[in-house]
Amino acid sequence: MTRIGFDVGGTNIKAGLFDNDMNYLSKKISSFPKALGYHNIIETMYETAMEMLTENNLSKDDVCSIGIASAGGIDIEGGIIIAAYNLDFKEVPIRDEMKSHFPGIPVKLINDADAAALAEFNKGAFRGYNNAILLTVGTGIGSGLIIGGKLFCGGLSHGTEAGHVTLALGGLHCTCGSTGCIETLCSATWLSKTGKPAGYADAKAVIDAAKRNEPAAVDIFNEYIENFSDAIASLTNILDPEVVAIGGGVSLAGDFLFAPLRDKVEQKSFFRYPYKIVPAQLGNDAGAIGAAIAAAE
Amino acid sequence: MTRIGFDVGGTNIKAGLFDNDMNYLSKKISSFPKALGYHNIIETMYETAMEMLTENNLSKDDVCSIGIASAGGIDIEGGIIIAAYNLDFKEVPIRDEMKSHFPGIPVKLINDADAAALAEFNKGAFRGYNNAILLTVGTGIGSGLIIGGKLFCGGLSHGTEAGHVTLALGGLHCTCGSTGCIETLCSATWLSKTGKPAGYADAKAVIDAAKRNEPAAVDIFNEYIENFSDAIASLTNILDPEVVAIGGGVSLAGDFLFAPLRDKVEQKSFFRYPYKIVPAQLGNDAGAIGAAIAAAE
Repeated sequence: MTRIGFDVGGTNIKAGLFDNDMNYLSKKISSFPKALGYHNIIETMYETAMEMLTENNLSKDDVCSIGIASAGGIDIEGGIIIAAYNLDFKEVPIRDEMKSHFPGIPVKLINDADAAALAEFNKGAFRGYNNAILLTVGTGIGSGLIIGGKLFCGGLSHGTEAGHVTLALGGLHCTCGSTGCIETLCSATWLSKTGKPAGYADAKAVIDAAKRNEPAAVDIFNEYIENFSDAIASLTNILDPEVVAIGGGVSLAGDFLFAPLRDKVEQKSFFRYPYKIVPAQLGNDAGAIGAAIAAAE
Repeated sequence: MTRIGFDVGGTNIKAGLFDNDMNYLSKKISSFPKALGYHNIIETMYETAMEMLTENNLSKDDVCSIGIASAGGIDIEGGIIIAAYNLDFKEVPIRDEMKSHFPGIPVKLINDADAAALAEFNKGAFRGYNNAILLTVGTGIGSGLIIGGKLFCGGLSHGTEAGHVTLALGGLHCTCGSTGCIETLCSATWLSKTGKPAGYADAKAVIDAAKRNEPAAVDIFNEYIENFSDAIASLTNILDPEVVAIGGGVSLAGDFLFAPLRDKVEQKSFFRYPYKIVPAQLGNDAGAIGAAIAAAE
């Protein structure tokens, strides 16, 4: 009795073979072979699954369910990736393609940020909570919501895009076509773009230099805290969650990030409540684990 | 078998006596007697309830439940109005005070915007939907959310303050102490303040003049649509609701408001989905009806 989870992103495909308690039996990471086209990519995912089974002396017959987390817009019911720009995927019937390799085994498709929130809810930062917001801060900002003790994928199942709540009306152009989204001012991309003219290579370089107290980096970092705390206060004002978890590379800055963020969010939030703001716990594994959990449910 | 609902606001106290299907048997509106102090105000509410009962040849024994909707921050469990600035109420144990007048009858306290959402869900614009956002646009902006077929009062029961989601980082000062909240740019107050220098008396005057095509009013109204559509798109991006209802005086502008709002929200929303944006249906009755429903549940 084993379960498979995939996390398909623009950089990597992560795959996991899990026991019934969602502990890893095997784990594989391969770079995303964009040029191959989706047909061959799904074929490669299948081969990875078979490798993991063989490593554990298991066969297809031992697989109870397969979950696939993917970036982009998802049709959960239809099992279709509607559009994932980073993957060059458009209208990809990934669930049924995977099913054709594993006849009779249930396959479930889920948005990657939703999968990560589900993983944190079952095995990570959200254990014991019923209302929680996950923000994954990287190139963009993904979000996953736990509401009333359940994953909430949006009222119409389109998803929950907290990164595309407006923060600065008429502000910076966003990849979504709108302007001033939280993503434009709170992503690692903002830190990196704003740091470049001051000679910093990327977001991490800005944060490291701010830790060393370099004035240019401190200014950028403080502006980032101002932006991000406002964004989090916005989200807590409307959802009033028990906990907010932050994942992605920026969250590795630790208390240097979290301490000022907590102070500012409390100052700015409508209820002046010290919302718990914590690092996400499952890191790069969250998507694959969450996909496996979603398929098992 | 009858039920009572109150809606306590800074301008009026609305009271309703309802049958079991939440149809009005009697309805009373009185101005809010701020100077009296909360003790006497609750006494007055009690007298109003008794009047309505007498009018219908009923007595206290016929009352099954009493609901009280109030502006401000509410402690639902404790039945206490924590702070309602417009009412001059602070730490007012309104539930237990009302209970002392109606011994043995359940009394329930609820936030007024939450009550309105619950009323729209049971008897108004949200019938048949499971995920919905109500925005009441007046002096400020109140909000009530239906999520997964239930009223959602926030993960920690503080409430859901969509009006205090940031729209313009570092923008206009808001009554909540923060800056740039949706309320500062989308309330009737914004229309009224922005209209004053151009000679318009209030929000309605601006809208009426825009309908007559007066250039100054058209400019203000177009800016309002830009602000408000951005705010609604923000909220649909994170909650992906089936329907958004708008109440309060501004919503009386009808399709002159709703048509451009729908177009702009579709353009700006992440999912490019034509979310249903409709007028709230229950108007000034929503709070009292919703309070009665909340207490009956």
